[in-house]
Amino acid sequence: MSAKDLNALFNPRSIALVGVPRGLKAGKVFLLGLMDQGFKGPIYPVHPSASEIDGLKTYPRLIDVPDPVDMAIIMSPRETVMDVLEECAVKEVKAVILYTSGFSELGDEKGRKEEERMREIARRGGFRIIGPNCMGIYSPASQLAPFPEMPRVPGSVGFLSQSGSLVHLFTNMCTSKKLYFRHIVSYGNSCDVDFPELLEWMRDDDNVRIICAYLEGVREGKSLVKALKMIAGRKPLIMWKVGETDAGRRAATSHTGSLAGKPHLWKMLFRQYGIIEVSDIEELLDIVMAFYHLLLKGQGRVVIVSGPGGPAVSAADAAERSGLSMASLGEQTVKRLRGILPTTGVSLKNPIDVGMAASFDLRHYLDTLDALVQDGGVDAIVILGGGATNELTEQYVEGLVRIKKASDKAIIAVAYPGFITQEELLAPLYESGIPVYPTPKRAFRAYAKMMRFYQFQKARGIAD
Amino acid sequence: MSAKDLNALFNPRSIALVGVPRGLKAGKVFLLGLMDQGFKGPIYPVHPSASEIDGLKTYPRLIDVPDPVDMAIIMSPRETVMDVLEECAVKEVKAVILYTSGFSELGDEKGRKEEERMREIARRGGFRIIGPNCMGIYSPASQLAPFPEMPRVPGSVGFLSQSGSLVHLFTNMCTSKKLYFRHIVSYGNSCDVDFPELLEWMRDDDNVRIICAYLEGVREGKSLVKALKMIAGRKPLIMWKVGETDAGRRAATSHTGSLAGKPHLWKMLFRQYGIIEVSDIEELLDIVMAFYHLLLKGQGRVVIVSGPGGPAVSAADAAERSGLSMASLGEQTVKRLRGILPTTGVSLKNPIDVGMAASFDLRHYLDTLDALVQDGGVDAIVILGGGATNELTEQYVEGLVRIKKASDKAIIAVAYPGFITQEELLAPLYESGIPVYPTPKRAFRAYAKMMRFYQFQKARGIAD
Repeated sequence: MSAKDLNALFNPRSIALVGVPRGLKAGKVFLLGLMDQGFKGPIYPVHPSASEIDGLKTYPRLIDVPDPVDMAIIMSPRETVMDVLEECAVKEVKAVILYTSGFSELGDEKGRKEEERMREIARRGGFRIIGPNCMGIYSPASQLAPFPEMPRVPGSVGFLSQSGSLVHLFTNMCTSKKLYFRHIVSYGNSCDVDFPELLEWMRDDDNVRIICAYLEGVREGKSLVKALKMIAGRKPLIMWKVGETDAGRRAATSHTGSLAGKPHLWKMLFRQYGIIEVSDIEELLDIVMAFYHLLLKGQGRVVIVSGPGGPAVSAADAAERSGLSMASLGEQTVKRLRGILPTTGVSLKNPIDVGMAASFDLRHYLDTLDALVQDGGVDAIVILGGGATNELTEQYVEGLVRIKKASDKAIIAVAYPGFITQEELLAPLYESGIPVYPTPKRAFRAYAKMMRFYQFQKARGIAD
Repeated sequence: MSAKDLNALFNPRSIALVGVPRGLKAGKVFLLGLMDQGFKGPIYPVHPSASEIDGLKTYPRLIDVPDPVDMAIIMSPRETVMDVLEECAVKEVKAVILYTSGFSELGDEKGRKEEERMREIARRGGFRIIGPNCMGIYSPASQLAPFPEMPRVPGSVGFLSQSGSLVHLFTNMCTSKKLYFRHIVSYGNSCDVDFPELLEWMRDDDNVRIICAYLEGVREGKSLVKALKMIAGRKPLIMWKVGETDAGRRAATSHTGSLAGKPHLWKMLFRQYGIIEVSDIEELLDIVMAFYHLLLKGQGRVVIVSGPGGPAVSAADAAERSGLSMASLGEQTVKRLRGILPTTGVSLKNPIDVGMAASFDLRHYLDTLDALVQDGGVDAIVILGGGATNELTEQYVEGLVRIKKASDKAIIAVAYPGFITQEELLAPLYESGIPVYPTPKRAFRAYAKMMRFYQFQKARGIAD
């Protein structure tokens, strides 16, 4: 079965919502999501007794829908699911999102058997199933969304998540950072379409530049290894694998019926295939943000520019701990800095401490940055700062954007918590390819992992 | 020299600001800070040519001030500092905050020699110096603040910081979490008053319940060891020690002239004396927040309650990795949960997955929480959730507060980024002793470090 078969899942022309509730109950989010995205094809609600839901003509059963149905999103009760799937076969549906839960995640033989049967019906009927126990697909280019109020802007990130709620949470986090997705798939218990196949599909989609994943386990190891091998170094794959401890493994089993597998085997696979591993949602965001904004180039020689002196010291620690190298500044650069900065309360060595007065006189920050982007020994500049007032911070942000426009070096901003407190002031940075982190430690962790991936690519001959 | 000598530093009855600028320049923050706090005693600006600054009568030299001066805050140029200090001796000033920089942090012999001379003048004149190269003291009970717009509410946390900017940044972070300080000291190059003495002073102040510190180095090891030994287990001391790498050590030297010392020696001291080590500002805040809100009691048996299933799995991983134990629920509790929660899409095992419907029907969260606080085998409940709308989230928060009021168990909320996005909705939690973390990993890291400190206390016979 090749990844091409998944096309109907991502580009349905018509959708039936089987078991959509009339009132505001959990399953209603699918209808709200499609309406909010402005889904272009027809939507057919299916409900045993309603004749109309939210202004849409409603049918008692799927097979009562008079027109062809490409995709069925099924949220009807557990005991009706098999019958609905049989109707999907009759109706020649091509793709099914199965939201209903209560199968293999209950941990009994019955659930596993039922999921086997689902797979059989799908094979026989010639359709594919995402789920059960999942939220399905977000793909704004096809106006698909499992929740309302998700961005309508397609981006370049793909996200594969066994958890449905993470789709919602992670998208919210990313939207505030102006980071957008091409596709997200919440695939739950994965009775049919599983992680390896989805990964392959995202690898083949040229619109997807970065792939990230939240994984509890896979059904079958061999195709996982094959898929990871095919992706190795070609696109960054950032993986949050949970179920690493006994408690986590037990939780994964009751959440999606997943067998989490042995942590050391996963780690070995990650190393072998250049997969970037992360350990929580904050790190996932941090790393995706680096790949989203920065170029894979250079040797990871960093320079730190800081107004506050204390954070500069901890930034130097963080840079060295992350395995990056502190850039040696060129003579010319040091000479220029001497002309820019005051004589006391500063340090011209890397980390460059521009002094507290810089929050009042932004030239100390901006002229320094200007000098550094012209230094051939510098690949990345991490700048910790801001203005003393909101107005000055706006000017600081404008200055960073202006310098970034003229340079392809990595410029990374640290908006120290408590320094720049209004997130909306940072938007122009995200829009200009300057990622922003709350602490230097998180900035360097992200940039270092990105540079290690670049090393992996070079060793494999994928990049020069 | 005993800690009593520091009293004038924290309770001055009158203050002279030597070298205060007329316009809005960096040094002006001291005057703005005192005015903002409503400092009760007289303030005497000292400026070579102004006769009035911001409505206050201004004197050309410190010795021209006609009345007694308890504290002098000195921000006059580097080359004038020694003369001003001599004037302090003549004027019988008791405490000096020396903001001016350009001494030992420049890394030359001259700076070190000058700091020795400062110490000599202070000894001879019978006063104490904080600094040079520092922001001095924030102590709202005495209306002291080195920046405007710092809270006027005294709290129970003490903070010792070699960095002045961190005072501002960290206070901002803490204020948004309703966490307040008794005293903060930014002490820079510490030519006279150094970390050990300040630590001793905070240990002896009954109003200080928790001490945290940002440290680049100390002048002298013997008194440090003595001070740490005297604090061991008596009050939590949360220490962010920087200068742990070569790059960090170099940066510490140019920031405050500090010798950072050998990392393994610091680690040994921390272990021996029950000092809680943190590695960045986010962790510092996380740990302080745990000590601020939670009681030192119980055995660290945690239960996780989550609406989103994915985060529940990663929370179980995080709990186990942090060294805490997952509580086994009592039979009675499981029975109650069965009556509260739906039959599918949930898990009654720890981590308890209350299902996505809980964001619509808050009883699933709150009745579960109610059952858990009554389970004798549970010490701490970490709850990940929120309402589907802002109104429901408000009700969720109210419910948590109500349950917390009737229980002394640790209740820890995780406001997953992207789930509860409006920080102000969380204020009632902080006000009721419920700390809030952005991820389960950070919640467990904080609670686990707190419980390890409690173990240390028990082993030392300080707690039972």
